[in-house]
Amino acid sequence: MIRRFDYGAPLPTEALVVDVPLSTDALHPFAVSTSEKSVTFTRKLGKDDLIFGLGETVRGINKRGHIYRSWNTDEFSHHENKESLYASHNFLIFYDGEKAFGVFFDDPGEMIFDLGYTSADTATITSVNGDLRVVVIEEDSLSGIVAAFRQLIGPCYIPPKWAFGYIQSRWGYAADKEVRTIVKEHRDRHIPLDGVCLDIDYMVDYKDFSWNQESFPDLKQLCSDMKEENIRLIPIIDAGIKQQEGYEVCDEGLQNGYFCTYEDGTPFVGAVWPGRSYFPDFFQPEVRQWFGKKYHGLMDQGIEGFWNDMNEPALFYSEKGIVEARQELTRLMDMNLGLDAFFHLKDVLMGMQNKREDYESFYHQFAGQTVRHDRVHNLYGGFMTRAAHEGLTSYNPEKRHLIFSRASHIGAHRWGGVWQGDNTSWWSHILMNLKMLPSLNMCGFLYTGADLGGFSGNTTEDLLLRWLQLGVFTPLMRNHSALHTRDQEIYRFGMQEDMKNILTVRYALLPYLYSEFMKCALTGGSMFRPLSFDYPHDPACLRIEDQVMLGKECMIAPVYEQNARGRNVYLPEDMLLVRFRSAEDYCLIPMEKGRHWIDLDLNEMPLFIRKGCIIPLSHGGEWVEQVDFTNLTLLGWVEKDAAYQLYNDDGYTTKPVLTDGLTAITLEVKDGKGVAVGNGLRVDGGKVIIA
Amino acid sequence: MIRRFDYGAPLPTEALVVDVPLSTDALHPFAVSTSEKSVTFTRKLGKDDLIFGLGETVRGINKRGHIYRSWNTDEFSHHENKESLYASHNFLIFYDGEKAFGVFFDDPGEMIFDLGYTSADTATITSVNGDLRVVVIEEDSLSGIVAAFRQLIGPCYIPPKWAFGYIQSRWGYAADKEVRTIVKEHRDRHIPLDGVCLDIDYMVDYKDFSWNQESFPDLKQLCSDMKEENIRLIPIIDAGIKQQEGYEVCDEGLQNGYFCTYEDGTPFVGAVWPGRSYFPDFFQPEVRQWFGKKYHGLMDQGIEGFWNDMNEPALFYSEKGIVEARQELTRLMDMNLGLDAFFHLKDVLMGMQNKREDYESFYHQFAGQTVRHDRVHNLYGGFMTRAAHEGLTSYNPEKRHLIFSRASHIGAHRWGGVWQGDNTSWWSHILMNLKMLPSLNMCGFLYTGADLGGFSGNTTEDLLLRWLQLGVFTPLMRNHSALHTRDQEIYRFGMQEDMKNILTVRYALLPYLYSEFMKCALTGGSMFRPLSFDYPHDPACLRIEDQVMLGKECMIAPVYEQNARGRNVYLPEDMLLVRFRSAEDYCLIPMEKGRHWIDLDLNEMPLFIRKGCIIPLSHGGEWVEQVDFTNLTLLGWVEKDAAYQLYNDDGYTTKPVLTDGLTAITLEVKDGKGVAVGNGLRVDGGKVIIA
Repeated sequence: MIRRFDYGAPLPTEALVVDVPLSTDALHPFAVSTSEKSVTFTRKLGKDDLIFGLGETVRGINKRGHIYRSWNTDEFSHHENKESLYASHNFLIFYDGEKAFGVFFDDPGEMIFDLGYTSADTATITSVNGDLRVVVIEEDSLSGIVAAFRQLIGPCYIPPKWAFGYIQSRWGYAADKEVRTIVKEHRDRHIPLDGVCLDIDYMVDYKDFSWNQESFPDLKQLCSDMKEENIRLIPIIDAGIKQQEGYEVCDEGLQNGYFCTYEDGTPFVGAVWPGRSYFPDFFQPEVRQWFGKKYHGLMDQGIEGFWNDMNEPALFYSEKGIVEARQELTRLMDMNLGLDAFFHLKDVLMGMQNKREDYESFYHQFAGQTVRHDRVHNLYGGFMTRAAHEGLTSYNPEKRHLIFSRASHIGAHRWGGVWQGDNTSWWSHILMNLKMLPSLNMCGFLYTGADLGGFSGNTTEDLLLRWLQLGVFTPLMRNHSALHTRDQEIYRFGMQEDMKNILTVRYALLPYLYSEFMKCALTGGSMFRPLSFDYPHDPACLRIEDQVMLGKECMIAPVYEQNARGRNVYLPEDMLLVRFRSAEDYCLIPMEKGRHWIDLDLNEMPLFIRKGCIIPLSHGGEWVEQVDFTNLTLLGWVEKDAAYQLYNDDGYTTKPVLTDGLTAITLEVKDGKGVAVGNGLRVDGGKVIIA
Repeated sequence: MIRRFDYGAPLPTEALVVDVPLSTDALHPFAVSTSEKSVTFTRKLGKDDLIFGLGETVRGINKRGHIYRSWNTDEFSHHENKESLYASHNFLIFYDGEKAFGVFFDDPGEMIFDLGYTSADTATITSVNGDLRVVVIEEDSLSGIVAAFRQLIGPCYIPPKWAFGYIQSRWGYAADKEVRTIVKEHRDRHIPLDGVCLDIDYMVDYKDFSWNQESFPDLKQLCSDMKEENIRLIPIIDAGIKQQEGYEVCDEGLQNGYFCTYEDGTPFVGAVWPGRSYFPDFFQPEVRQWFGKKYHGLMDQGIEGFWNDMNEPALFYSEKGIVEARQELTRLMDMNLGLDAFFHLKDVLMGMQNKREDYESFYHQFAGQTVRHDRVHNLYGGFMTRAAHEGLTSYNPEKRHLIFSRASHIGAHRWGGVWQGDNTSWWSHILMNLKMLPSLNMCGFLYTGADLGGFSGNTTEDLLLRWLQLGVFTPLMRNHSALHTRDQEIYRFGMQEDMKNILTVRYALLPYLYSEFMKCALTGGSMFRPLSFDYPHDPACLRIEDQVMLGKECMIAPVYEQNARGRNVYLPEDMLLVRFRSAEDYCLIPMEKGRHWIDLDLNEMPLFIRKGCIIPLSHGGEWVEQVDFTNLTLLGWVEKDAAYQLYNDDGYTTKPVLTDGLTAITLEVKDGKGVAVGNGLRVDGGKVIIA
C-alpha cells in the first residue's frame, strides 16, 4: 500500500513520476508534530529494529544509532561522525524483523534524521522548512518496498557500455602529452583501460567548457587518437561560472538573467575554483537548456562523457562573507591576537566555507516562484546533472552518454550516475564505500562507484590492490586521486602485476555485471542488496555489514583490512567460492551454509555464487568493446539443470528493451556432466561443479 | 643477544637503565646509510613479515604498511593516516614467522618509520638528527625479546590500587558543587566510582597549581568529604606556566632561570590555555625538583593523584608566530583576499599551531649542554612526568601516587602511566585503543587506558556501553569527554543499568586484573599481548588484530561495531567463554579451538579463559577498597588440578615484592568436582567446569 501525506506547501521537485493520491488516513508510522515552520516525525524503536536507506551516507547499511542531515555538502573528510555528504537521499526502510515499511521524504530542503542517536529507542525526523510530501510504502518484503519505491521515482540513468570499463583519473592531469603517456603506460603493460578523466586542470582558469589550447593544442586529434586506442576522455564540469567579462558563458548568463540572484535581483557571487563566480539557476528549464548545450562544444571535439562537480554547490566563500571576514580580521588583529581572538579568527576563516548564511542569501526562479536557495538546496546538483543529461541527449539522441555527478538527490538518478564522493586513502573507506552500494541502489542510483585507492591522502599499494578488488564489481570503476598526493596509476607500483590481474577479472565478469546492471535498471531492481533483503528471516543476515548481494546469483565480501590474509564470511546458503587471482587463474570451492574463514592472499579476491545458479565469464579484454559476450565459460555449483539470462545490446541504444537483449543460457545436467546451450553463443559448461 | 650501536653524539636520555656495551659487530638487521646529519636504516621485508611495536600509534598491532613519525604531537584527530600522536615509543619487533629481533632507537628527536609504506617490501627508518643509540635484541621468542627489552629500560610505574577503579572525567567540571553532584548521582544509583578528574576549569586562568577559590571555596573539605565517599579527585596540570607578574610559579621560574629560553637566553614564550606562557625546562634536575614540589600545594588539600597534559609540549602559537601571522594577514588582506590569498590565509592560521619552526627556536640545559628543543623534543613530556613523580614521591615516600600523562617516551614508563590520548567518539576508536594496548605494554607502559566513550565528538549510549566493555580490562578505566560535547556520565543515559552492570564486572575482576598487572609490572611482562606472542606458530594468530591476550590465563575480544549483536572470534586453543551481563549474571560456555561466532547482545561482553586455567572473581564493590580479595569464586574449565597465583598488597606500598604478595590458589579435581584452597582465603571452586 502506498500513501501520500503533504505538509506545508510542497514544491514540485519532480522526484515522483507517478501521481500518488493524497491519503486521508492518519500517518500511522510516525507521530507528527509541527512547530512554527518545521515538521517532526517521531517513532519509538524496538530494541532490535533496523533502519535501511539514506543512500550516500557514512556508517552502516543499518543506519541506526547516528544522526544524518540531508544538506548537500562539499565534505572532504568522511569520518564516521559526519552528518552530511554530497547527496540527500531521503528514503528509509524501517524493519522490525517481521514487518517493514518504506518512507520517502520528498523535501528539497534540510532534513535531520536522528535515528536512535539522541536516544537509542527513538527515531526523530525533522523537516526544517516543513514543506514536504511524505510517501509511505507498505509491501510484503524489503525488496518489494524498494521495487514499489523505484516505480514511483522512475527508471534510473543508464550509461553506455564502455563506461563499465576501468577509468583512470587524477586531479592534476593537465596536458595532451600526459594523457597520451598514461594511456601508453596502460596499453604497453596490457593493463585494461577504457577512459581517462580530466579534472579541473584541463580548463583555462577553471572556466567551464574551455580547454587550455597550449597544453591541449588539438583536442579533437587527441580524442580521435584516443578513440583509436579505445579510450574516451571524460572532462569535468563545475557548477560555478567564472566572473569575467568576455568569457562567453559568463556574458550570456548575465545578459539573459540565467544566474542565481540576491534578493534584489542582482547576480549572486561566490568563490569557487575560478575565483569569484556566478551560479546558473538550473531550476529554470531555459537555463538548463542553455547550459546543457554548452557541453556540445567539447562533444564537437569528440568527447562522449562528463562528470559534474562542485554542484552542492560548494562555496569557498561569498562576496558578503569576505567583506565581513575582512572587518572581523581587522578588529581581531587590533586586539593584539590574544588566545580567544586567535581561536575566533580560525573559526571565522574556517566558517567562511559552505556557510549557511550564504545559502540563505540567493534565490532561484522555480516553477513560477522566487525561492530562496536553502528551501531547495538539495536539488541544485541534481538539476545541473539534468541540464547536462538534456544537453548530451540533444547532441546525440541516438546514443547513451556518460554523465556522473558529485551532488544528487532522489530524482537525479534518472539523469546521471554518481561517484561516492571525495573519499580518502583510508582502509576504512573500502568498507564505507561497500556499505553505500546497497543504500544507493535502494534510492535509484545504480551507476556508481568509489574513488578507488582513495582521493585525498596517499594510498599504499596494498590499499589500492584491495580497493580494486571491490571496484571490480561496481558499475563505475574509477581510480581517482587528488593533487599533491602520491601518483596512483597502477603502473606506479611494485604490485602492478597483481593489480592488472585483478582488472582482468573485471573484464571477464563484464557480461555478468552488465547483464545484472541492465536487468536491475530496466526492472527497478537493486544490483547490490543487504543480505537481509534476500534472507529476511535469517537473524545472522540482518546485521551483516561487510558483505552484500550482487545481482541475483552472487554475494561479495571483499577484504578491507590492511595486512589481512583472509576474512570471516557468513554464507546464508550453500555457495560456490570463486577465489580469483586473475580471469584465468582462479579456483572453485563449494562451501556449505554457515560461517567460514576464507584465506585470501593480497592478490586474491572472492566471489560467492549461490548454489544452483550459474554465471557467465568471458575471456576478458583490454577494453570493453574487446570483451566477447558470445564466448562464455559458466561458473557455478548445481545439482540439477540451471539457467542464466544474459543481457547484451550495442552499448548505446537509448531505449533498451529488456526482452530484446536477453538470451537464455541453460545448463543441462546429464550423467553428472553439465552441457551448456545458449542461442548464438559458444558456452562452455565444463567448469560447473555438479553436486 | 643484545647489541648496541651508536651514531653521531647520543644524548643521555636515560631510557636504558642497564649499561649495554658498544658492539663491534656490523649492525646485521639493517643496511645503514648516513647523510650530512641523518642516519637511515633500511631492511627488505619478506612478503609475510610482520612488525610489532611503536606503542601509542594508530593502525594495527602489525604496524606494517604505514609511515609513523616519532614527534610528540597534540593531535586531536586520530585518523588512520596520522603519523604522530602524543608519544614516541621507538621500539619495534620484526618477525618473519620463524625468527624475530627487537630494535630500540634511543633517539630523543624526530624519527621516521616507513614500514612498507613507500614500497611494500622495504622498511626505511630515519633518525633526522642522527644522534642515537640503537639496541638490537635477539631472543628465542617474541615475549623473550620484550622481556629482555624491559630489563634494559627498567621497571614500569605502579599506581596505588584505588587507581584501578572507575574514574569519571570531563573537560568542564568547574565547581565543588558539580563534583559533589556527580559523585552523588553515581552513589545513589550504586554505579561504582573511585575518582573524579578535574580538567583545566578548576584552575584560575589556567594557572598550574592554582584553584578557583570561588567555585572551590574549601578544597580541603571537598577532598575530605570525597574521601569519606571513597572518591579521589584527580586534578590536571599543564606544561605551560602563565606569563603573569605576581603569579608565584611564573615569578620563581623567571627569577631562577627555570624556563626554556630563546637562543639569546631570554625566556621562550608560547601560547597555550593560559595565553602567553613559559615552559619549565624539565631537563634540569633542579627545575624538576622545583616543579615537582609545586604539586605539594594541592596534596596539602588532600589530593592523591594528578594527570599531566599539554606536555608534548602543545603550542597554540608562539610570540614570533603571532607577529609573522599579523604581517602576513595584513599583506593578504591588502590583496583583497582572492582565492589564493584566502587559502593561504587559512594555511597561515592553521600552520601556527604546533609549528615546527617554534620547536626549533628554544633551548634546554641538558646534561651540561645547551640543546635546541627539536633535538630532544620527545623527552619533554616524559621529563615533566618525572618531575611530578619525584615531587609526589617526596611528599609521601611511603605511598604510591597516581600520575598519568599525555606525552611520553620510552623511559617515562618508569615515572607514570599514560592515557591513550584525546580520542573521538568513534566506533573505530574502540578498536584503535584495543590495538594500542599490547603495543604500549611492549614499550613498558602498563598503566594505561582510553578515554571511554570518546573525548571529542558526541557519544551515543550504545557506543559508551561497548567502550566500557573494553575498559573493564584496562588498568586505567576512565570515562572522559570534551567541552561542548554531550554529557557522558553513565547516569545520563537510558542504558545506565546495562552500563552499571558492566562496571560490576570490572570490580569483580579486580583481584585478577590487579594480580596480573602487578605480576607483569614486577617481572617485566606484558599484561596485554598480541595472540602471536603466545601462539607464534599458529598462522591464524599472526594476523589477528581485534583480540588480545590478557594476563596469563585470558583473551579478550570486545564488540566494536555499532548495531552488532556478536562477533567472530578465533580461539587458538580450547577456551571457556564467560559471557558477562554483570558480576552476578554470566554464563560459562566451553568452546573448542577454532573460529566461532559469538552472540553478544548490547549488554553482554565476553571473556575467554584458557582451558586448564582458573581465575578468581570477587563479589565486587562500589569502590576498590570495598572489593574483598579474600572471598573469591573461581572460573575456569579444567581437566585436572589447576592453580592461580593471586597477588595482593595494601595498595600503597612503594616497594612491592612479588613473593610477599602472592597467595597460591589451588583447585583439586576429585571425583569430577573441584575443591579450591587458598591460604587465608575463602575460595569457591564450585563454578569451575570439570571436563
